[in-house]
Amino acid sequence: MKAARLHAYQQPPRIDDVPEPEAKGPFDIIVRVAGAGVCRTDLHIIAGMMQADLGHPALPYTIGHENAGWVERIGPAVRNVAPGDAVVLHPLATCGECAACRAGNDSHCSNRSFPGLDGSDGGYAVLLKSTARAAVKLAPGTDPALLAPFADAGLTAYHAIKKIAPLAHAGTTVVVIGVGGLGHFGVQLLKVLTPARIVAVDNQPERLDFARSLGADVSIAAGEDGGVRSVLELTDGRGTDIVIDFVGEHGTPESAIRMLRDGGTYSVVGYGGALATTTLEMINRELHILGNKVGTYNELVELMELARQGKVRIEARRYPLDEVADVLREFEAGRIMGRAVLIPDGARP
Amino acid sequence: MKAARLHAYQQPPRIDDVPEPEAKGPFDIIVRVAGAGVCRTDLHIIAGMMQADLGHPALPYTIGHENAGWVERIGPAVRNVAPGDAVVLHPLATCGECAACRAGNDSHCSNRSFPGLDGSDGGYAVLLKSTARAAVKLAPGTDPALLAPFADAGLTAYHAIKKIAPLAHAGTTVVVIGVGGLGHFGVQLLKVLTPARIVAVDNQPERLDFARSLGADVSIAAGEDGGVRSVLELTDGRGTDIVIDFVGEHGTPESAIRMLRDGGTYSVVGYGGALATTTLEMINRELHILGNKVGTYNELVELMELARQGKVRIEARRYPLDEVADVLREFEAGRIMGRAVLIPDGARP
Amino acid sequence: MKAARLHAYQQPPRIDDVPEPEAKGPFDIIVRVAGAGVCRTDLHIIAGMMQADLGHPALPYTIGHENAGWVERIGPAVRNVAPGDAVVLHPLATCGECAACRAGNDSHCSNRSFPGLDGSDGGYAVLLKSTARAAVKLAPGTDPALLAPFADAGLTAYHAIKKIAPLAHAGTTVVVIGVGGLGHFGVQLLKVLTPARIVAVDNQPERLDFARSLGADVSIAAGEDGGVRSVLELTDGRGTDIVIDFVGEHGTPESAIRMLRDGGTYSVVGYGGALATTTLEMINRELHILGNKVGTYNELVELMELARQGKVRIEARRYPLDEVADVLREFEAGRIMGRAVLIPDGARP
Amino acid sequence: MKAARLHAYQQPPRIDDVPEPEAKGPFDIIVRVAGAGVCRTDLHIIAGMMQADLGHPALPYTIGHENAGWVERIGPAVRNVAPGDAVVLHPLATCGECAACRAGNDSHCSNRSFPGLDGSDGGYAVLLKSTARAAVKLAPGTDPALLAPFADAGLTAYHAIKKIAPLAHAGTTVVVIGVGGLGHFGVQLLKVLTPARIVAVDNQPERLDFARSLGADVSIAAGEDGGVRSVLELTDGRGTDIVIDFVGEHGTPESAIRMLRDGGTYSVVGYGGALATTTLEMINRELHILGNKVGTYNELVELMELARQGKVRIEARRYPLDEVADVLREFEAGRIMGRAVLIPDGARP
Repeated sequence: MKAARLHAYQQPPRIDDVPEPEAKGPFDIIVRVAGAGVCRTDLHIIAGMMQADLGHPALPYTIGHENAGWVERIGPAVRNVAPGDAVVLHPLATCGECAACRAGNDSHCSNRSFPGLDGSDGGYAVLLKSTARAAVKLAPGTDPALLAPFADAGLTAYHAIKKIAPLAHAGTTVVVIGVGGLGHFGVQLLKVLTPARIVAVDNQPERLDFARSLGADVSIAAGEDGGVRSVLELTDGRGTDIVIDFVGEHGTPESAIRMLRDGGTYSVVGYGGALATTTLEMINRELHILGNKVGTYNELVELMELARQGKVRIEARRYPLDEVADVLREFEAGRIMGRAVLIPDGARP
Repeated sequence: MKAARLHAYQQPPRIDDVPEPEAKGPFDIIVRVAGAGVCRTDLHIIAGMMQADLGHPALPYTIGHENAGWVERIGPAVRNVAPGDAVVLHPLATCGECAACRAGNDSHCSNRSFPGLDGSDGGYAVLLKSTARAAVKLAPGTDPALLAPFADAGLTAYHAIKKIAPLAHAGTTVVVIGVGGLGHFGVQLLKVLTPARIVAVDNQPERLDFARSLGADVSIAAGEDGGVRSVLELTDGRGTDIVIDFVGEHGTPESAIRMLRDGGTYSVVGYGGALATTTLEMINRELHILGNKVGTYNELVELMELARQGKVRIEARRYPLDEVADVLREFEAGRIMGRAVLIPDGARP
Repeated sequence: MKAARLHAYQQPPRIDDVPEPEAKGPFDIIVRVAGAGVCRTDLHIIAGMMQADLGHPALPYTIGHENAGWVERIGPAVRNVAPGDAVVLHPLATCGECAACRAGNDSHCSNRSFPGLDGSDGGYAVLLKSTARAAVKLAPGTDPALLAPFADAGLTAYHAIKKIAPLAHAGTTVVVIGVGGLGHFGVQLLKVLTPARIVAVDNQPERLDFARSLGADVSIAAGEDGGVRSVLELTDGRGTDIVIDFVGEHGTPESAIRMLRDGGTYSVVGYGGALATTTLEMINRELHILGNKVGTYNELVELMELARQGKVRIEARRYPLDEVADVLREFEAGRIMGRAVLIPDGARP
Repeated sequence: MKAARLHAYQQPPRIDDVPEPEAKGPFDIIVRVAGAGVCRTDLHIIAGMMQADLGHPALPYTIGHENAGWVERIGPAVRNVAPGDAVVLHPLATCGECAACRAGNDSHCSNRSFPGLDGSDGGYAVLLKSTARAAVKLAPGTDPALLAPFADAGLTAYHAIKKIAPLAHAGTTVVVIGVGGLGHFGVQLLKVLTPARIVAVDNQPERLDFARSLGADVSIAAGEDGGVRSVLELTDGRGTDIVIDFVGEHGTPESAIRMLRDGGTYSVVGYGGALATTTLEMINRELHILGNKVGTYNELVELMELARQGKVRIEARRYPLDEVADVLREFEAGRIMGRAVLIPDGARP
């Protein structure tokens, strides 16, 4: 079968012909890929930026960690899905036995692997090996292809927003920095889950209208100060209650901290830059800074329910898997609006 | 009356003879000071390090923000205390009307003042003007003098520990960095409020025994790496669940972050240094960093109840208010063990 | 001035001419009533059902506990409102000093009074004496008259829904029993604050359409079993996650418990009937039953913000205060749709 | 092998010779029983009181749901334990796949079975079939026999107390009704997990001293009013903040509700009686009533950690399994102090 594999850092993945994966383990499932989302993390992997964080995976391997499709084959102990089921896949393969799994904290499983990232094969391929624990079954008849970006981009935004939602009561302000792949989910989810005023900040003018169309109450250009002055004006000089930063580089952490009110919460989702402040600032203003990592299986189930109800829509476009190198180049150049989804040739249930 | 006032930065406060404060406002109270705790923040104020953060207060003013004593006079609307009552004073004067006050978040009152810090007179004096809302009434017959350090040092430790207590279940590890004025409360409070394993880290050998005598399960020398390697060994390489950092400078933030487990929480109480990490670290490990600012009025009531029950004891020693300059010098030189409390000449109910 | 006072139980209140209240206390405020909501509790008071619960108040007194208007006069210490301000009034007069007040739990103030209920005069009058702590300032130019029902009916619904909102994630079902004065707020607030499926149950057919127009996903006739069978069918036999019962009598508690899933939550808002189950049922199904009492001051502020944004609308109609006896009779007979608001003759700022 | 099986309701279980269970399923484990706790629920099962609640199980079957022992054999997919490991067993067999399991709510697993209760064989036997997900591994060298009562009695108490612990801050009062099998864990766990004042209520005088020896601050005889008057006196007429009722019959629910303060919480653990109040009482006092069902797997892990540290001890005594009928009779007659544990003949690893 075809698979887009990374052979060397700083070179695009190459379409190879590889053997089909097999469902050898009792809980293995083989999924026919309907669509695989293209994520900024793919660029970071290819650039070689994450080698150490990913444990120096052996090359080549198939990338792609936002996957949806149809169950093709299952291991002997699998009960929750059957061949033919449309599924979206939680991005992590987890053990179900460690303390984190027993508490529902899938992202912190002691024995997790991250297919498409850490050297186990991902979803830029015709077939993908996953596990029963990762499969979220979709309503019969659902076309899974364009739901793929929910698996990671959507889930990560949902996890971050659910964490801060109890703080976001009526009368509070939440600033969303970055209205791209994750941020466009973020704006919609804030609208669905909270009555807060939503202020979107971006440095691309066309995204400001986009943000408002998704539910932002106000959208402001990042400008030279990252939007700090505008946010302070909108909040009578007091600062915003919450910032969710879907960028995490190019100075957004500094801006985020400056635009927060005393007692405010800075939620970090995007990454790439430094986060620098002082302990005096942390205590004098009683700031809370929260990292976020993917989300739980149940959160993905909840998110797919919101998608089914039409409460969250996705801006995504299909591209042939064969064009993966071109798509990644266009994505890096900022020329792809919304989310790109790679479709293997002839994908169907 | 006598008061120790700051006349110029980088010079010790001077004992002046000043007029007695009056209870002009309806909720004013005048407290005869039994004891006033000496805090590291006093050194920072005198050094001039906090001028900007405190809004450039006009000199001279009386410092001292950890105060306990007896109510001397009250304004016409005061109902919660009466002359003669022994009281410990919440360090902030709050309005009772803003959204923060109406939620019980005293530290974030929109109209707060911080006597002894921001230019309003503090408690290094015979009498102190405070407000009814700050007064926590003590059991009849209590000697308030040595309870003064609970008002700020104790309260701040209590607030930080109450915030993380829900995470500190049996089987978790909490590292306490710094077993000085605040940290010695911290160790005791963790013991009372959680079943977690308590690991104390300090760079002064005599404090390691002190920590164990207060309830620490393990105490380790900070050493060159701030205790990181020892904590990792104690946790089978996984890292600690929680760090409470009562130092906040000299590299402790860096050590704290390195010794945390994935999904761990870093609670910042001490201050003075930089806090630097990356957004990748925050999201890849899903870290939470929590600042802490004083505590609420009700938390101070709870803490005084713990003190009354003997569940938290204080290591404090009395010094005459007249010797304030000497005490501050000795404190800065690290030659005062436990907490110093300044006692005005002839203090009694 | 005119006031509708209760002179004897089981007789309608009578319009009397009484002296105007005075702002004698430092925090007293005198409010010119724009509108006073008519609440089922008024019927219970008049019927004499609540004498014991209200501490056997001395007659006569003015009833009416859902009040909005304009500040007319203020006591000398009042700072948060000024004459001319449009306000809605929190129904309780609270002390601001007890542990409950210091935690923001206004409903549990140790020294509270409940004007219009417990013998202190309420708002069925031209002027009403209240306290600064009860006043929520409205945006300039707001007409307060029809906002009165938010003060108690709206606030109580908001408080109950905010309490269960963290449980009401996507994919859960919330049943609302009773779509009258409180329930019609309840349906709207669930829609704004949660992504849950909302199922309305009522025994009046016209209210089923009303419920759907307010945002209920499904509405079902109570029928003989109180809707139990329908709810079980809608939830595949599993039961609903949450019930909010705005009726609390005529068998609704029994139905509510029967239609809950294991681990479900029954939130009680309406009252009048018995609540009977067994301890075996409580533990075998791990049920949670939550009473609700009014709400906090900050919750009223949040609710008024939702009203300002148009996210919650009120179904209310104006009636002259002089017609109070007729209005109460029509209300008791079930012939008033939505909420009735009594307007004193010539009410204006 | 020997097993004590229930052949007919209202007759004691009979020691039978039955085939040894086999580890056929991939996650089956066979445990050699070291000890099996005798629980009041066993009496209820035998009396036939729970037939309907347990789904009318087919007789005969082996009872006993508090089990500890050594792993004897494991199914092919089991990784978390190995033959020879000392284990205590979570009382429920759960699927690991449903929404409840994925959230860590083991007690609400959609596909759970309850060995020893619902017709699948329990632990009054030489060998017991359980599942990998139920096994909590003990430290090497631990003697599991007397730890058996932690599996259900201890776990249920722990679960209930962890649920109310965030409410039980310094200065609050928690009343424990019933200091028997579960209650004696309850008193100790409150002491370890909260700084609240603990008041024990029991109608057996010898248990009042017992309660104090376990950490109760006060213990009072239930008397005719179930301790209501004494509790009101201890709380200055205000009522207690929390009641945990380990009896749940003979009038304790009524007493519990009467002794609560407004805004208080009634936690139900014991069962057998009626729970009757009114909706007016629920809302006028804003009471919360919480049922409790067993506990989670992770809670059992935490509890065993507390036991390992010696923070919770068990009052238990060994009896030969062969004497099960006698033991149950003595237990029913109230002549067994602490917890009885049945030991199969020759039990050893």
